[in-house]
Amino acid sequence: MRDDLQNLGLGGKTTYPVEYDPTVLESFENRHQHRDYFVKFNCPEFTSLCPITNQPDFATIYLQYIPDKRMVESKSLKLYLFSFRNSGEFHEDCVNRILDDLVALLEPRYLEVWGKFTPRGGISIDPYANYGQPDTAWQDFAAQRLLMHDLYPEKIDNR
Amino acid sequence: MRDDLQNLGLGGKTTYPVEYDPTVLESFENRHQHRDYFVKFNCPEFTSLCPITNQPDFATIYLQYIPDKRMVESKSLKLYLFSFRNSGEFHEDCVNRILDDLVALLEPRYLEVWGKFTPRGGISIDPYANYGQPDTAWQDFAAQRLLMHDLYPEKIDNR
Amino acid sequence: MRDDLQNLGLGGKTTYPVEYDPTVLESFENRHQHRDYFVKFNCPEFTSLCPITNQPDFATIYLQYIPDKRMVESKSLKLYLFSFRNSGEFHEDCVNRILDDLVALLEPRYLEVWGKFTPRGGISIDPYANYGQPDTAWQDFAAQRLLMHDLYPEKIDNR
Amino acid sequence: MRDDLQNLGLGGKTTYPVEYDPTVLESFENRHQHRDYFVKFNCPEFTSLCPITNQPDFATIYLQYIPDKRMVESKSLKLYLFSFRNSGEFHEDCVNRILDDLVALLEPRYLEVWGKFTPRGGISIDPYANYGQPDTAWQDFAAQRLLMHDLYPEKIDNR
Amino acid sequence: MRDDLQNLGLGGKTTYPVEYDPTVLESFENRHQHRDYFVKFNCPEFTSLCPITNQPDFATIYLQYIPDKRMVESKSLKLYLFSFRNSGEFHEDCVNRILDDLVALLEPRYLEVWGKFTPRGGISIDPYANYGQPDTAWQDFAAQRLLMHDLYPEKIDNR
Amino acid sequence: MRDDLQNLGLGGKTTYPVEYDPTVLESFENRHQHRDYFVKFNCPEFTSLCPITNQPDFATIYLQYIPDKRMVESKSLKLYLFSFRNSGEFHEDCVNRILDDLVALLEPRYLEVWGKFTPRGGISIDPYANYGQPDTAWQDFAAQRLLMHDLYPEKIDNR
Amino acid sequence: MRDDLQNLGLGGKTTYPVEYDPTVLESFENRHQHRDYFVKFNCPEFTSLCPITNQPDFATIYLQYIPDKRMVESKSLKLYLFSFRNSGEFHEDCVNRILDDLVALLEPRYLEVWGKFTPRGGISIDPYANYGQPDTAWQDFAAQRLLMHDLYPEKIDNR
Amino acid sequence: MRDDLQNLGLGGKTTYPVEYDPTVLESFENRHQHRDYFVKFNCPEFTSLCPITNQPDFATIYLQYIPDKRMVESKSLKLYLFSFRNSGEFHEDCVNRILDDLVALLEPRYLEVWGKFTPRGGISIDPYANYGQPDTAWQDFAAQRLLMHDLYPEKIDNR
Amino acid sequence: MRDDLQNLGLGGKTTYPVEYDPTVLESFENRHQHRDYFVKFNCPEFTSLCPITNQPDFATIYLQYIPDKRMVESKSLKLYLFSFRNSGEFHEDCVNRILDDLVALLEPRYLEVWGKFTPRGGISIDPYANYGQPDTAWQDFAAQRLLMHDLYPEKIDNR
Amino acid sequence: MRDDLQNLGLGGKTTYPVEYDPTVLESFENRHQHRDYFVKFNCPEFTSLCPITNQPDFATIYLQYIPDKRMVESKSLKLYLFSFRNSGEFHEDCVNRILDDLVALLEPRYLEVWGKFTPRGGISIDPYANYGQPDTAWQDFAAQRLLMHDLYPEKIDNR
Ligand SMILES: [Ca+2]
Ligand SMILES: [Ca+2]
Ligand SMILES: [Ca+2]
Ligand SMILES: [Ca+2]
Ligand SMILES: [Ca+2]
Ligand SMILES: [Ca+2]
Ligand SMILES: [Ca+2]
Ligand SMILES: [Ca+2]
Ligand SMILES: [Ca+2]
Ligand SMILES: [Ca+2]
Ligand SMILES: [Ca+2]
Ligand SMILES: [Ca+2]
Ligand SMILES: [Ca+2]
Ligand SMILES: [Ca+2]
Ligand SMILES: [Ca+2]
Ligand SMILES: [Ca+2]
Repeated sequence: MRDDLQNLGLGGKTTYPVEYDPTVLESFENRHQHRDYFVKFNCPEFTSLCPITNQPDFATIYLQYIPDKRMVESKSLKLYLFSFRNSGEFHEDCVNRILDDLVALLEPRYLEVWGKFTPRGGISIDPYANYGQPDTAWQDFAAQRLLMHDLYPEKIDNR
Repeated sequence: MRDDLQNLGLGGKTTYPVEYDPTVLESFENRHQHRDYFVKFNCPEFTSLCPITNQPDFATIYLQYIPDKRMVESKSLKLYLFSFRNSGEFHEDCVNRILDDLVALLEPRYLEVWGKFTPRGGISIDPYANYGQPDTAWQDFAAQRLLMHDLYPEKIDNR
Repeated sequence: MRDDLQNLGLGGKTTYPVEYDPTVLESFENRHQHRDYFVKFNCPEFTSLCPITNQPDFATIYLQYIPDKRMVESKSLKLYLFSFRNSGEFHEDCVNRILDDLVALLEPRYLEVWGKFTPRGGISIDPYANYGQPDTAWQDFAAQRLLMHDLYPEKIDNR
Repeated sequence: MRDDLQNLGLGGKTTYPVEYDPTVLESFENRHQHRDYFVKFNCPEFTSLCPITNQPDFATIYLQYIPDKRMVESKSLKLYLFSFRNSGEFHEDCVNRILDDLVALLEPRYLEVWGKFTPRGGISIDPYANYGQPDTAWQDFAAQRLLMHDLYPEKIDNR
Repeated sequence: MRDDLQNLGLGGKTTYPVEYDPTVLESFENRHQHRDYFVKFNCPEFTSLCPITNQPDFATIYLQYIPDKRMVESKSLKLYLFSFRNSGEFHEDCVNRILDDLVALLEPRYLEVWGKFTPRGGISIDPYANYGQPDTAWQDFAAQRLLMHDLYPEKIDNR
Repeated sequence: MRDDLQNLGLGGKTTYPVEYDPTVLESFENRHQHRDYFVKFNCPEFTSLCPITNQPDFATIYLQYIPDKRMVESKSLKLYLFSFRNSGEFHEDCVNRILDDLVALLEPRYLEVWGKFTPRGGISIDPYANYGQPDTAWQDFAAQRLLMHDLYPEKIDNR
Repeated sequence: MRDDLQNLGLGGKTTYPVEYDPTVLESFENRHQHRDYFVKFNCPEFTSLCPITNQPDFATIYLQYIPDKRMVESKSLKLYLFSFRNSGEFHEDCVNRILDDLVALLEPRYLEVWGKFTPRGGISIDPYANYGQPDTAWQDFAAQRLLMHDLYPEKIDNR
Repeated sequence: MRDDLQNLGLGGKTTYPVEYDPTVLESFENRHQHRDYFVKFNCPEFTSLCPITNQPDFATIYLQYIPDKRMVESKSLKLYLFSFRNSGEFHEDCVNRILDDLVALLEPRYLEVWGKFTPRGGISIDPYANYGQPDTAWQDFAAQRLLMHDLYPEKIDNR
Repeated sequence: MRDDLQNLGLGGKTTYPVEYDPTVLESFENRHQHRDYFVKFNCPEFTSLCPITNQPDFATIYLQYIPDKRMVESKSLKLYLFSFRNSGEFHEDCVNRILDDLVALLEPRYLEVWGKFTPRGGISIDPYANYGQPDTAWQDFAAQRLLMHDLYPEKIDNR
Repeated sequence: MRDDLQNLGLGGKTTYPVEYDPTVLESFENRHQHRDYFVKFNCPEFTSLCPITNQPDFATIYLQYIPDKRMVESKSLKLYLFSFRNSGEFHEDCVNRILDDLVALLEPRYLEVWGKFTPRGGISIDPYANYGQPDTAWQDFAAQRLLMHDLYPEKIDNR
């Protein structure tokens, strides 16, 4: 089980990447491919650097997907997100890049990424992107979730 | 009433299983089969072991179903969930297994299981799976609920 | 107005029933029958007895309906719910019975009952049932609300 | 702008009505008639009298509408709601009456009124009514919002 | 990247406009035009003046959009919102104006603006307006979001 | 028990006073005079009129006391607070008057009154006054509670 | 261990008392008498009857104590509190009686009881009483806790 | 009553000051000088300008005092706080200045000011200052409140 | 640094104890012995077994101490708390035992343990014990904290 | 004013330090030295590296002080905290170091630092340290605040 992981296991010693590195991501086989089900990752410890000011940015990343054949290994996901720590990237680019990298890794049925950043200059920015397998019903699934997205913005007062 | 229970009643003395054991589950007849209605179980006291590190995992399991002919007896459900206590199982496998075991027991019209685990390495994982009776309108019911699932991820800050 | 009430008025002295008694329920005429509108009753002071252990059970009952010709008088509803106080009834039977009794009284366009009970043995149970007038569009109304029911289970930690 | 108001402006001295008086309501022209948009009024300071016991009742009124040609002036709305202060009216009649009076004043595309009252005898009552312009798509708009109404009753414990 | 910005960058010194000025808004190219995705701005530090009383008004502005070719630069958005500080404008006009100005700047696929103001005279006002590209499916997208708008008004008690 | 009440009992029909009237207050004998203990009344349904604008004011009154020989009857307290409904009184005068009236009625060991009003013009006012029996240790008790009063003002955002 | 319990153990079958009965209380020896430490019982499922109206009352009872030689057995405490279910007692008498009964049973170093009841007629009542062993420093301990009691009344809005 | 106010009453038309102006503050006689009692003002609508960047700053000001002979008129306080709107002042200087101005106006027994500002660069700043009448016991009162100040910093996550 | 740890480091592979085992606890030297400061451990993942029913119990353990010469290593604390997983122990015995074991290990200046358990039979139990170095001022420190303990019991409704 | 700052002003361009660097801290003169008052910094965007695993750690730092002659400039504080980003430091060492560095910079009357970290292995750690000027009353001030520290640990469930 999960013996198709190459570089790391849950119990081993870890080397943290020093710059953005999507190659740390690893996947394993979905044991429940007959079923459509969601897996959500809550990642409140995301940080990157502003590409203009070098100022650190902070976000909580909410990542949900319906796996197809492959699933993302959680420790590798942690290392991958860690690899943004010293990289400069705008908020909406972070979210789109995470989506692109995971789609490339997993070819999932459905995947969405929501980043909720802390404010700069009194305004905070929350990008949200999603994906459904092209030329399948999952594309419409993604479109419908976009339609229903965030009708109730959470209360924000910057405190 | 409920006299079709074999091993246990709400008032009796209980033996707790020492390993994963779906046979402790018991069912009784649904007295309201003419009606489609939901029963939800809130189970904040779920714990299992990580199959790799042996580290204890903790979750709240939310379990909802629309019964058909049989209903799950709540004390037997407690014992069943308790039987994961010393078992090693990944998060998404726990959720899928609970769904499979209850479907086998109850053949319900609809059933869903949502596990919300505490974080490891700064990330928490919340699998969600559901089921609708095959070859009935309940299959589409399940698909539609999957579509609307968790558009508003709860705020997580690991504290 | 409301002079069609038989036994009680809002201001009078009250005799509390000592056992389950649906006959205390009273209704009055809906003055806004041209309109489909909701009335909700929040009832956090519901208590009954476990039929096996005699242990007291506690719940909040949320009751919503769209009246047709008759409306339930609120003080009689209080007495009716009070009449479960010394009765033994399982959680899902309480909810179905309340629904049945109010449907018999009111023949409403739509009605739903959600009971949220306190936990026993670490697990709490929340049954939900609804009703739409047979052979009308309200039946589909009820089916659609069932489909959308409780996609966001409230956070429960038993404290 | 808003110079079509007859009796009051935002800055003037005010006479408070001593009994229910819908004639204090004033309207002005909607400057954005080409667009369908919502305006919500949050009114947590509503009070009336119980017509049977004379006991004061308290509610928060949530009022939302999509204007057509006319909009309600907010200070006049305040006076109008104030005029219930010494009037006797049942909860569901208050909500229906507010809806009727505003429809008569504004002939809006869509309007809804939700009253959330404090409990009497352990039970609180929350009527909700809505309206869509007859013989337009807004009627179906109202019907669909009724269908989706209050699937998640707020937690109530009377404290 | 973002080198098409004319007057300002994230790191530079800023001149704050002294009156309403939509020309401070700047845009840059959307790098992910192949994808429909949301960007939300949470703006809890909005203030304007009441055009009648000159009294300061305060609001949190929630602004969401699906970009087409252009995206709004966040620092210029901050300056733009700041430019209302000494301007007199009614609540619903603020919200419609912000929507109009951003549509003119961005020609987005979809955009919505929700203003939540603090109360005056015990009542608070929350206008909400949205927009979908004319003669595209985004128009229906906007109409459907309007239909689902704010079915669960947040609890308001003016404290 | 409590048979020393003159005008009203918990179960009787009630006449609501039409203006400020401290004579509706009734007391009964404290059955636990050997013990110093607190009784708190939470009164979220208080309303009066602004003596200048006639505008209605709303408050939650928190009232705590340590009885000596007499205790205040709760239904008479309700009527007493109701009697402010059509009276004009400033916030700090309401609170001081309630304290004075209850001290006169009860001669308690200790008593405190905290009024938390809704905002007018963006500012809300919360007066707090307390009392200890003169020439006893309760005077110092009152002084010490004043010293520790409200070191953690509740978060207020007028919504 | 705890073998000095007479009538019940945690695992046995239980007979619920039908009227107020302090004799169901049982105690066992404090195994940590060399230490002053607190034990708190949170009891949100308390109900009694109003002695005048027979109307059910509901409360959460918070009970804290520092044991001396004896400790109260938790299941017997549950039965004892259950025995108020059909008894008529005023709020402040319930709290004082619970305190008296537990002091008689345990002769504790310190004990306090706080009852928080649901509102009747818009007002809720929260009595609080405490006790310190006479002629010891615990008496002053009790007096000092009374002085610091409830400086921050929880927010109550009856919903 | 309050007829010693010079420039304004609660019901009149108001001119808002265009720059920092402590002369708009007005006071009236304390009618309860025999008693030490608190009055708190919650002011969530405070805004000023950063003296270096000209960027708007936002704060909630909590202001509490024990009056001696004079009390501050609430509408004049609103105008006074409004007068910071276009003034440049650091956070800690705002708080100290408000304290100084009110002490000069009122010569109160005790006064404290707590400003809670929104973050800049990821950090928010909350100055707190207090005052007790010199050469009286109120000086020690102030010192003791400083000692107990903010032992439980509210949770801040900048959202 | 921390090289005085015998069995484990933060990065190594871990063997989880199968029964209660205080010998897994390890300590290291306090590098800041010149200063009195607190370290708190929040441990929401504690579970043990009821010694009578074998039913699993769950708690959050809050553990605070002021170190003297030694500090507890956090991973060893995790293993130690894990070792209660299959042990039978009453709530108050767990808390006292944890306190005893840590005092034996660390000889701290001050230490306190608060366990907050989930309910059984509708009642939850929260023991709290503390310790100050004998024959030092820390003993009085402990006594004073006991005096101020839990004056504001958190709201509990078993949900 | 504040013209004694050497390297930076609030409006300038910033170079972020790449490793732990207390020399970025700057101070300016306290303009209110005649008064004892608090300034609090809420810093939810703190991150460092675990010295053993290199894993990123996250914390909210609450920093309060009563200035003497010098005050810390807020932007320099931001840079200083940023300089921990790539440094390896244990939780309790971070907190003690921040305290030491600020004491060295400011020689304040009083200063305290509270770090609240996210969990690792299910346990989170919150160190708290404070300081009072030696040989002054501020030393006792610090001791008393330590005594009252964190009697109400915030609820932690790792979510
Ligand atoms: Ca917030
Ligand atoms: Ca069916
Ligand atoms: Ca959280
Ligand atoms: Ca809870
Ligand atoms: Ca239209
Ligand atoms: Ca509530
Ligand atoms: Ca597209
Ligand atoms: Ca509020
Ligand atoms: Ca006494
Ligand atoms: Ca608020
Ligand atoms: Ca409430
Ligand atoms: Ca005095
Ligand atoms: Ca926050
Ligand atoms: Ca020392
Ligand atoms: Ca709860
Ligand atoms: Ca939490």
